[in-house]
Amino acid sequence: MSPHTSGVPHLVAVLGRGVVGPDEPVVAADDLGLTRGDGCFDSARVVTDPSGTARVVDLDDHLDRLAASARALDIATPPHDAWRSLVAEAVAAWSTPGEAVLKLMLTRGREWRPPAPTALLTITHRGAPSPAAAATDAPAPRTITAVTLTRGHPSDAFADAPWLLGGVKTLSYVVNAAATREAKRRGADDVIFTTTDGFALDGPTAGLLVARGHTLLSTPTGGTGILESLTVAAIMDAARADGFETRFELIPVEQLYTADALWLVSSGRGPVLITALDGRPLRGDPALATAITRYAGF
Amino acid sequence: MSPHTSGVPHLVAVLGRGVVGPDEPVVAADDLGLTRGDGCFDSARVVTDPSGTARVVDLDDHLDRLAASARALDIATPPHDAWRSLVAEAVAAWSTPGEAVLKLMLTRGREWRPPAPTALLTITHRGAPSPAAAATDAPAPRTITAVTLTRGHPSDAFADAPWLLGGVKTLSYVVNAAATREAKRRGADDVIFTTTDGFALDGPTAGLLVARGHTLLSTPTGGTGILESLTVAAIMDAARADGFETRFELIPVEQLYTADALWLVSSGRGPVLITALDGRPLRGDPALATAITRYAGF
Repeated sequence: MSPHTSGVPHLVAVLGRGVVGPDEPVVAADDLGLTRGDGCFDSARVVTDPSGTARVVDLDDHLDRLAASARALDIATPPHDAWRSLVAEAVAAWSTPGEAVLKLMLTRGREWRPPAPTALLTITHRGAPSPAAAATDAPAPRTITAVTLTRGHPSDAFADAPWLLGGVKTLSYVVNAAATREAKRRGADDVIFTTTDGFALDGPTAGLLVARGHTLLSTPTGGTGILESLTVAAIMDAARADGFETRFELIPVEQLYTADALWLVSSGRGPVLITALDGRPLRGDPALATAITRYAGF
Repeated sequence: MSPHTSGVPHLVAVLGRGVVGPDEPVVAADDLGLTRGDGCFDSARVVTDPSGTARVVDLDDHLDRLAASARALDIATPPHDAWRSLVAEAVAAWSTPGEAVLKLMLTRGREWRPPAPTALLTITHRGAPSPAAAATDAPAPRTITAVTLTRGHPSDAFADAPWLLGGVKTLSYVVNAAATREAKRRGADDVIFTTTDGFALDGPTAGLLVARGHTLLSTPTGGTGILESLTVAAIMDAARADGFETRFELIPVEQLYTADALWLVSSGRGPVLITALDGRPLRGDPALATAITRYAGF
């Protein structure tokens, strides 16, 4: 068991301090990560064996993506080695068997003190749903229902507008959280965002994967503003080796309802099959679903 | 002087605890205000006389607007009386003469502990610019230059899409901060956001006010997603009593360059006249500028 286990097993570590108690306040009131959501994060999967030995899946890929987010925000990210040391210390202190999520967070730092980014991480067990939040990476069933909700912008909104921070995993996720609450209000589990010109984007905390026969599709990054999904990329790599075609292209919303299968895909929970969209049952080909889960390494 | 003055005079108070040291961490690593920008804020002007007696301008209006933001987010805001007591304690501990900003912040609370919102406030002197951030309410000159930058959505994007949180002062302000940095890169001080269909919105931390002759215009709330500006409303009230017409209507971007005067307007810094937009000098009628500053009570 983790040394810090009141409620959901949850571990906190802060760069420059190491592992701290999970209930200890760690961020000042003028930290721009809090006051403006001005920072970025990345989430990786943690797998802990029954003996309590934990490992992080593809840590370097997540550190690379975090560094790319930080660059887009003009925040100086700590060197990978500093993050790796902090992660190693945290993982050594983590021993809750099963699945967990490592979340790396980096903020611009304090507004009214000399500039210095705040870097911290959490590891959270995926054994129980959050008591607090609707929009979390809470342990999901392997299938979900979803609704489509507009993101309010056209599919090319982020082209040539870097200040809109397309593709950046920022700490400003309030709309993602509100959209997930709207899905629950409509009796569904999750969301596929759509553009004002009628294309599918991604989910609030997940990438989108669409199967049509032996072709796997996902939304392109760039002008759409969506985040690159490391897990979609990993699935596509494995699927191509298995004879699938893969493409990134704009997917009209109406084609979602007739696809052979749809998934929302994230590092923490892997691919989750969508069984109904906007109340309409989806095909959800079981053989495809099994294959995709395997490609994702789950 | 404030009892807490390392660097910029800055005071912190937390609901349930009262005034704490300004460098003391107050927020846990899994607070959704930090991890998702899932919360709201409001800012009010604080005026402190030479003897050190401070008062907050229009506190109840700001508490009402904070409560409206909280409702839109499904966060239970503390009663006004609880906020008023905390503000009174903070104001009693604040004695730095001159202008300051009170910022009230409310988050959804911790993700991995039982749900309970986090409520805190800061008071920050406006005597010196922030050492850290580009996008702040740092003390501004009474005139600024600005650039127009797209917000990436059409002018009706927020109609019938409450999950996009139009009009809500959320803690997810990373794009506002990035746009302000883009303005600095272009040699300007601030930003007027625009829609993809060619209308003016507001600034990253301020409302927009436009004068054409004896008519004052500002952007309508609702489908545009912009925040209601209490200071724009106060200016318009005073201006009408002085013979001005006032209207909320969509303002085509090209009409900004030929207006008699443009201002960005916020509670903290009042109306600030824009002297050039996208490098083009603006008329900036001095008599109008003087009148508007007076209407705002600055």
